[in-house]
Amino acid sequence: SYSSGTKKVTLIPGDGIGPEISAAVQKIFTAANVPIEWEAVDVTPVRGADGKFGIPQAAIDSVNTNKIGLKGPLMTPVGKGHRSLNLALRKEFNLYANVRPCRSLEGYKTLYDDVDVVTIRENTEGEYSGIEHEIVDGVVQSIKLITEEASKRVAEYAFQYAKNNNRKKVTVVHKANIMRMSDGLFLRCVRDMAQKFPEIQFEEKYLDTVCLNMVQNPGKYDVLVMPNLYGDILSDMCAGLVGGLGLTPSGNMGLNGALFESVHGTAPDIAGKDLANPTALLLSAVMMLRHMELNTYADKIERAAFETIKEGKYLTGDLGGRAKCSEFTNEICAKL
Amino acid sequence: SYSSGTKKVTLIPGDGIGPEISAAVQKIFTAANVPIEWEAVDVTPVRGADGKFGIPQAAIDSVNTNKIGLKGPLMTPVGKGHRSLNLALRKEFNLYANVRPCRSLEGYKTLYDDVDVVTIRENTEGEYSGIEHEIVDGVVQSIKLITEEASKRVAEYAFQYAKNNNRKKVTVVHKANIMRMSDGLFLRCVRDMAQKFPEIQFEEKYLDTVCLNMVQNPGKYDVLVMPNLYGDILSDMCAGLVGGLGLTPSGNMGLNGALFESVHGTAPDIAGKDLANPTALLLSAVMMLRHMELNTYADKIERAAFETIKEGKYLTGDLGGRAKCSEFTNEICAKL
Ligand SMILES: CC(C)[C@H](C(=O)O)[C@@H](O)C(=O)O
Ligand SMILES: CC(C)[C@H](C(=O)O)[C@@H](O)C(=O)O
Repeated sequence: SYSSGTKKVTLIPGDGIGPEISAAVQKIFTAANVPIEWEAVDVTPVRGADGKFGIPQAAIDSVNTNKIGLKGPLMTPVGKGHRSLNLALRKEFNLYANVRPCRSLEGYKTLYDDVDVVTIRENTEGEYSGIEHEIVDGVVQSIKLITEEASKRVAEYAFQYAKNNNRKKVTVVHKANIMRMSDGLFLRCVRDMAQKFPEIQFEEKYLDTVCLNMVQNPGKYDVLVMPNLYGDILSDMCAGLVGGLGLTPSGNMGLNGALFESVHGTAPDIAGKDLANPTALLLSAVMMLRHMELNTYADKIERAAFETIKEGKYLTGDLGGRAKCSEFTNEICAKL
Repeated sequence: SYSSGTKKVTLIPGDGIGPEISAAVQKIFTAANVPIEWEAVDVTPVRGADGKFGIPQAAIDSVNTNKIGLKGPLMTPVGKGHRSLNLALRKEFNLYANVRPCRSLEGYKTLYDDVDVVTIRENTEGEYSGIEHEIVDGVVQSIKLITEEASKRVAEYAFQYAKNNNRKKVTVVHKANIMRMSDGLFLRCVRDMAQKFPEIQFEEKYLDTVCLNMVQNPGKYDVLVMPNLYGDILSDMCAGLVGGLGLTPSGNMGLNGALFESVHGTAPDIAGKDLANPTALLLSAVMMLRHMELNTYADKIERAAFETIKEGKYLTGDLGGRAKCSEFTNEICAKL
């Protein structure tokens, strides 16, 4: 079911501001004549035969067929038994590496102007194993699970990413001084992989040291690879350095497909008011285009977006401007 | 064994620059006529009857008797079977709460000028339990251990600290959305404790959110309380915001005593050259004085140190100056 020359992409518009920023991205893609066809799906959890809530089968099928998707923010349903849908998607599609580039934007001033880092996060295990027990009353253990398989896989992804993107250095971030066996295993896997990429510099750093250095001299870092939780923290922190989650893209790489998403929230307070900033989702879509080797389109759209931000005439409220989401979007389209 | 009116304090000078910054602190204390008597002890690990290395008994006895100590940086011996001496001390003396205030210094400019946060870290369990197993080849688990007892204890410490120090707000930092049982237990303990301190504001934040906000608007935060690893990360990050570990003090509160320490490294490259900055150890000693209710001395010494830094004439190399450790120290003494 491909139309001639175009590829289908699953679109999960999401909740809150999700639909309007998704529409903005679609509009910009149309203006740029990107040769893809969107297949919008709904992921509102449905109750299965076993009584548990899960992702609708149609959405699963769509991603499994298209092998590529773009996703807006999702609300986590309240109430017992609901796990985060974001996590469910990571699990369902075995999205093993989460990639988040953070770069200082020329048009948007923050305290830092030399940030250009990419965090690559193991996305399936570690502190996110979900295995927990209450041993006796008031004594709980959570299991951090590290496997050679997942560690090697994300290590390889990180070095391959560095190579493909002309990056100079990979830093592995760990606490193997404390978690000698688990982080030790992760560290060894990355260290071994480094051997296979002699053209990429390699260094090992403690997580606390990276957190300290990152706020003083982010220019020190390039590509960082790390276990799940450390990636959760560092990617948000790096996003903070360049202006927040409204500006930074994210991609989840799977064995069998990839899902690109904005990682900010659903912002229910401004939803439906044409006030949201579509940049994070748009830049995620740009990452997606590169992944699809549609680089010309990616470059063109990215340039138009950066220019619009740099000019500063049509900035949304979160960036200190007064433009509507549609005005920002139209300006990007006009530049295409 | 107390001399009249004075109290004995155990001093662990430490390795590398430890001895010279310890001497600086002692000199300043003498200049300020602080009514304490130092008892210097060596903690170079000794091999016990069981063949394992441990802290020398004389050092343990000294801290157990004096119930208060000041400690310079320690080298972690290399080689199998050596765990960090810092960790060994935390365990030996049941130092359950690690307190690290980070405040922007008037005299030392960084990107931030409104940082005034105190991280309070559970210091005995969590990700630092030391319990790890290899389940099968290439599959490792580390256990994060959270107990009600330790969580309550550090929660109480945090609120009591906020109250005693005229702080407005306590933020509990957690990932209970992921580690529902372990961080969930920690969160509940802090939440319950908040009830007993209605005069202190209380809020709950995800670790990733705090990391993001901290680099954008640190002024949002006041006192933060959290499990062990999160404290390791956040305290270093906050130190980074105000100039690094050379400027920030640290105190470890135990059931039976307290140990104050600078948390920077031993800096072997500059050791013995009279180039080290004694500020972190000095401010840790000032924290210690407050803990001993010798507030007048604490205030006086702190004022002299801050003034010396503010004037900027006698700054050590790490702060961009050319002064020797002894010149910086003498200037503080001259102000006393
Ligand atoms: C929403 C939450 C479960 C998630 C995480 O902790 O991984 C988020 O913080 C992220 O980084 O994608
Ligand atoms: C030296 C190391 C074991 C220690 C830790 O991880 O706790 C250090 O980073 C700290 O914060 O005191």
